[in-house]
Amino acid sequence: MAERLSKAKLSVFRRLSRKKHRIAEGRFLIEGWHLLAESLGSNARLLAVIYDPSRSLQDEDQRTLQVALERAESVYLASDDQLRALGETVTSSGVVGVVASEEDSWEDLSRELSRIESGCVVALDDVSDPGNCGTIIRSGDWFGVAAIFLGEGCSSKENPKVLRASMGGVFHMPILECRSLRDRLMEARKSGFEIIVASLDADAEALGDFNWPEKSLLVVGNEARGVRPSILELADWRLTIPRFGKGESLNAAMATSALLANWRIR
Amino acid sequence: MAERLSKAKLSVFRRLSRKKHRIAEGRFLIEGWHLLAESLGSNARLLAVIYDPSRSLQDEDQRTLQVALERAESVYLASDDQLRALGETVTSSGVVGVVASEEDSWEDLSRELSRIESGCVVALDDVSDPGNCGTIIRSGDWFGVAAIFLGEGCSSKENPKVLRASMGGVFHMPILECRSLRDRLMEARKSGFEIIVASLDADAEALGDFNWPEKSLLVVGNEARGVRPSILELADWRLTIPRFGKGESLNAAMATSALLANWRIR
Repeated sequence: MAERLSKAKLSVFRRLSRKKHRIAEGRFLIEGWHLLAESLGSNARLLAVIYDPSRSLQDEDQRTLQVALERAESVYLASDDQLRALGETVTSSGVVGVVASEEDSWEDLSRELSRIESGCVVALDDVSDPGNCGTIIRSGDWFGVAAIFLGEGCSSKENPKVLRASMGGVFHMPILECRSLRDRLMEARKSGFEIIVASLDADAEALGDFNWPEKSLLVVGNEARGVRPSILELADWRLTIPRFGKGESLNAAMATSALLANWRIR
Repeated sequence: MAERLSKAKLSVFRRLSRKKHRIAEGRFLIEGWHLLAESLGSNARLLAVIYDPSRSLQDEDQRTLQVALERAESVYLASDDQLRALGETVTSSGVVGVVASEEDSWEDLSRELSRIESGCVVALDDVSDPGNCGTIIRSGDWFGVAAIFLGEGCSSKENPKVLRASMGGVFHMPILECRSLRDRLMEARKSGFEIIVASLDADAEALGDFNWPEKSLLVVGNEARGVRPSILELADWRLTIPRFGKGESLNAAMATSALLANWRIR
C-alpha cells in the first residue's frame, strides 16, 4: 500500500545521490517518467516508486505509473519539494524510482560475446565526465552495440547524470563496470574481438579506409590524455578520424558517435 | 602599461557574463590560455588581457601571454580570486581576455558561399543547450564545414559555455547568428546550396544511401521538437540516421557528428 514519504525515509533515499551509499546499499535512484518506463521495460528490479499524486499526468505517464504501482515493492506519496530534494533537475518531473543495482556477470556476458558472430563493444578508459559517458551509452544504444565496458576512472552507470544523458540506454544493453579494463580486453580478445583504439595520431588507420573486423572492440580514452599505455599496447588497430578543418581535437563522445556511425554505415 | 585590476573595473567586466551586457557593449570574455591563443590566431580584436602575474606558466602559455601583451589594447594584473570571479570554471586558469564582438557580415559570407564549389554549412534551429551548440561548432571545425548558422533559439557564440565547448572553433570559421534562419536558408539556396534537414522519421533518406550534394546545408533542430515547420518546408532532403539498437533518439550534437563524418568520409 502507498504511504506518505516520511522525513526519515526521504533522508534515507537522499543518501543514494552519493556513490558510496549506492554501492553499500546496492540500489540507485532514477528520476522522471522516461527512465522509469525504460526500467520497467527491462529486467531491473523496482524497489520503490515515489511520486506526487497531486500531479495530473499525460496518458503515457499515467500508464507508466500503473505498471510501476503493480511492480514496485514499495510505494510512497511525496510532495513536489520532496521529489526535488531527491532529484537532480530543477523542475521535478513528479516521480523517482529506486532500482536494485545489478552487476552484469562477466561470465554470462563473456559467454554471450563468445557466441556472437559479429558486433561491436565500446570500452571507455578514464572517461570521467558523466555527460560524455551517458551520451556515449545513448549513441551505443542507437547504433546497437553489443555491450559497453566502463573502465577505471569512468563515471558509474548509476550516476544520475549518466542515467539522464543515457536516456534509458543503461537499461537496454549490458554495461560492465570493470575493475581492470585491461583484463576484460584480454579476455574479450580470446572471444575473437579485435581491439581498436581510437587515436588522434595521424599515422593510425584512417576512418574511411578502415575495414571494421567482424568482432570489433572500440576503446575510447580520456580526452586530454588519450588511452593509457597499458591499454594501448593491447591494440590490434589504432584508428583515427581524419581532420579536414582547423580543430585540434574532437570531444570523446562526438568521436565515438562518428566512429559508430561509420561502423554501421560504411 | 599594465595596471592592477580595480574593484570598479572588475565589476564592469563581470557584467559581460550576461548576454544583454555583451550585446550592449559589443564585447565578450574568453577564459583560459587555449581560447586566448585561438583568438590571437584569428582576426579577433583583443581589447584587454587580464592575468595573474604570480602564476608560473608553461612555455606555451608564456608565449601566448607575450603575444597577448603586445596585441591587447589594455593589460590588467589580477588576483586568482578576481579571475575566478570573471570566469565560469571553478579552478581559474589564470587568464581572461576581453574580445570585441564581430558580426560576420552576411554580404561577405554570402559572396563567399556563392563562390565555393563544394562544402557544407551547418544550421542549428532552436538548439538552446550551450554545450550542444559548442560541441557542434567543435565538430564542424574538425570536419571543416564552411560556416555555421545559429538560428532563433540557439545559444549565442559569445556564451562562455559555447566558447569553452567549441575549443576555439568560434575563431576558426564564420559563425552567423541569424535573426531569421528561414531567410538565410532561402538566400543560401540561391547560392546553390541544397537544404538537408536531419530527421528522425523513418521515411526520410537513410544515411549510407544518401549522396551528399556538392553544396550541402545541413539543418539540425531542437532535440525534443525537431526542426520548426517553417524550416522543414524548405527541405530539399530529409536525412535520417538509421537506428540499429533500442535507443529512442540521438543527442543533437552526436547526430551532427555522425552526419558530418559521413559527409566527409563516405
